Amino acid sequence: MQTQQRIAIVGSGLVGTLLGIYLRKAGHVVHVYDRSPDVRKIAFSGRSINLAMSHRGWKALDGAGIGDRIREVAIPMDKRAIHLVDKELAYQPYGIDGESIYSISRGGLNRLMLTLAEEVGVEFFFEKKIWDVTLADATLHIGETEKGAWEELKYDKVFGADGAFSRVRHRMQRQNRFDYSQDFLDTGYKELNIPANPDGTHKLDKNSFHIWPRGAFMLIALPNMDGSFTCTLFMPFEGENSFEALHDREAVEGFFQQYFPDTLQVIPELVNDFFKNPTSSLVTMRCYPWTYGDKVALIGDAAHAIVPFYGQGMNAGFEDITCLAGLMEQFGDDWETIFKEYQVIRKPNADAIAELSYRNFMEMSTKTADEKFLLQKKIEKWFALKHPEKWLPLYDRVTFSYRPYSEALAIGNHQNAIMEEIMKIPSIETQWETEEVEKKILELLQQS
Amino acid sequence: MQTQQRIAIVGSGLVGTLLGIYLRKAGHVVHVYDRSPDVRKIAFSGRSINLAMSHRGWKALDGAGIGDRIREVAIPMDKRAIHLVDKELAYQPYGIDGESIYSISRGGLNRLMLTLAEEVGVEFFFEKKIWDVTLADATLHIGETEKGAWEELKYDKVFGADGAFSRVRHRMQRQNRFDYSQDFLDTGYKELNIPANPDGTHKLDKNSFHIWPRGAFMLIALPNMDGSFTCTLFMPFEGENSFEALHDREAVEGFFQQYFPDTLQVIPELVNDFFKNPTSSLVTMRCYPWTYGDKVALIGDAAHAIVPFYGQGMNAGFEDITCLAGLMEQFGDDWETIFKEYQVIRKPNADAIAELSYRNFMEMSTKTADEKFLLQKKIEKWFALKHPEKWLPLYDRVTFSYRPYSEALAIGNHQNAIMEEIMKIPSIETQWETEEVEKKILELLQQS
Repeated sequence: MQTQQRIAIVGSGLVGTLLGIYLRKAGHVVHVYDRSPDVRKIAFSGRSINLAMSHRGWKALDGAGIGDRIREVAIPMDKRAIHLVDKELAYQPYGIDGESIYSISRGGLNRLMLTLAEEVGVEFFFEKKIWDVTLADATLHIGETEKGAWEELKYDKVFGADGAFSRVRHRMQRQNRFDYSQDFLDTGYKELNIPANPDGTHKLDKNSFHIWPRGAFMLIALPNMDGSFTCTLFMPFEGENSFEALHDREAVEGFFQQYFPDTLQVIPELVNDFFKNPTSSLVTMRCYPWTYGDKVALIGDAAHAIVPFYGQGMNAGFEDITCLAGLMEQFGDDWETIFKEYQVIRKPNADAIAELSYRNFMEMSTKTADEKFLLQKKIEKWFALKHPEKWLPLYDRVTFSYRPYSEALAIGNHQNAIMEEIMKIPSIETQWETEEVEKKILELLQQS
Repeated sequence: MQTQQRIAIVGSGLVGTLLGIYLRKAGHVVHVYDRSPDVRKIAFSGRSINLAMSHRGWKALDGAGIGDRIREVAIPMDKRAIHLVDKELAYQPYGIDGESIYSISRGGLNRLMLTLAEEVGVEFFFEKKIWDVTLADATLHIGETEKGAWEELKYDKVFGADGAFSRVRHRMQRQNRFDYSQDFLDTGYKELNIPANPDGTHKLDKNSFHIWPRGAFMLIALPNMDGSFTCTLFMPFEGENSFEALHDREAVEGFFQQYFPDTLQVIPELVNDFFKNPTSSLVTMRCYPWTYGDKVALIGDAAHAIVPFYGQGMNAGFEDITCLAGLMEQFGDDWETIFKEYQVIRKPNADAIAELSYRNFMEMSTKTADEKFLLQKKIEKWFALKHPEKWLPLYDRVTFSYRPYSEALAIGNHQNAIMEEIMKIPSIETQWETEEVEKKILELLQQS
């Protein structure tokens, strides 16, 4: 049991709120600050991408004892539904053991978790702006405006869970020898919506992650509890087929007619939503160190923001909390060691999932039409089903296991090297389902 | 001829001052702001690394008509003087055509250039703190303290020449889709000093860049006009043989005795300077975009800070100015195009010299004792002297030419690939000065 600490968390998003629950249950006084209003009292922003909760996320929720409450609002998706133009809808099961990922609306989850956090005694302070943090003594500087008068709020610890553009990190960034990078994609995204049928049922298969891959751009749709789907259009900001190019009603309608014809009857508010909803950008943010003595720590997107193409952003943030909670049990009141171990353990994993997420973006935008790439994936799956103990596909290791992301990346690289050799086999296109190929893979696995 | 603009430059360092001269000579009103006092009125900081001016730097100075004034305070160095323990001092000429780089003290150069800038009508405002910039209308926000009252100063253009930790860039950084990274080395540096002989002569060869390479750490010394040398010790912050490890007089003296025995009699104030002078850090900073409409542009270290191991930091900043001046002639009053072209042309070159500088650091710290690497350099030089029209060594292309850095990097990579093949030749150690090797290189060059 730890000695009670007074802890401030900046940011009442998913990670800040879950962290609050963990810290409160560990006996601490927990105050959560957010510059925005309580999301339970306002409409959500129209810039959301639905969440795909997977193993790592569930583990953290179950660790806080709230997994079952969240499962009530989660919809299992056990497959991708691939929508191609002029082709039959195709289904690709996710895990090799039939596992699912779970669609949850970000706004709905956040509202529910705030209430669950309040139930255990976490205290929230909304519309309170934290402008600065004194790192050495965990003091928050709070005030109406940046140039106006500020009050000081002194705590024992401060957690920055304030997202990719974290104000807490902003202060840490000004330290000497603080490594930092932010890299934006030239691709942005926009939220669209497929409403429910009049009887409340879903217009598309409810238990699928729907995807319309089109190379440089794509559309996805994830189911909501109310029968609707939250759609996200990913597309370059500039150039041919870009947000810039779709500047009027005709352009948008023509574009969807040409590339997503089967969506026209299910997205009735297409043009309105397209021009009403903002176009948002996608950033990868890396930094180090994440902690300052035993006083301040960054967590979730504030420490490692990634692009959403592996569906791991929230899961990675929640896993930070699992890691931290384990260290709190292990090291008790030695917060300096807890913070040090936390960043040493999590940093390589955050870098790995950033890399994997970025690669998935590149693969989606350049390789979805590449026959050779699709064949390689097919061979991998075939082999994995034959030798599940020898070959866990990368996606499964990331999504349906608790093994470190860094290990998944390393093994994934190794598997890729093996598959490159396999793809060199003459006429592999026609003779891949053979004992020869199977043997060759086994042989290559043996060598390493 | 351009229409006169009112232009503010933030930063009165080398790049800001030279840019001021160019803009003033082009007919503009130029105000230069600096948060620090006039360097002509204070002692310099003791954290300086002497500058090595090379072709690109001279070109920019000559373009402003002040090259000859600067040559008066520059000392040519036509060779490296390599100091090894228990070995004869060895000399390596720099260019294959006997070219020199030029040692100039940063403080001395800055003072002289301020005076030259004032002579042509550039106006300086020292100890004026710019806290923010409104990008859309080129307005500076100036005030005593960050939280205090600010005044607004409206200009037609603002240049951020305020270095690696630029305040102007800081504002640009808060824009959406602004790419940014800062990466610190685990190696820092400290200034030391070799004073002149009583008669004003130099204690070491005056026309050499002196270097004591020791793998993970090294010492360099560059000559000053007054007979002294400015020395810089580069060393890891932590670990064995680090700034942290050298925590007292005995440790410092023992370290120098062991690794730099020939310096003991020429650095009389070693221990005093070691503990008096700060340990500074080394950062690579990349960002993009560099400009905002036709209003604001970053230049020099504010746009691209690099590590000093290629001696190109100032040269690269000065080359930004040469580029900008050329575009001003070409596009006249079309500043939007001038700024757009400027960043498009310079960004790949800034990235290339950042990469080359970082590689030089890695080479110095890991390969200076690598026999194979030294042999490779020797073979390259031998071939370059035989076929100067076919093989300009990378160092020469970077230092003694005006070819773009990006081209130097690309050709350097290609040369490296060729040399890798050459180094695979069996018993290359003994048979490198042969017609066979020469032919092989020619053949590999032909192939590409």
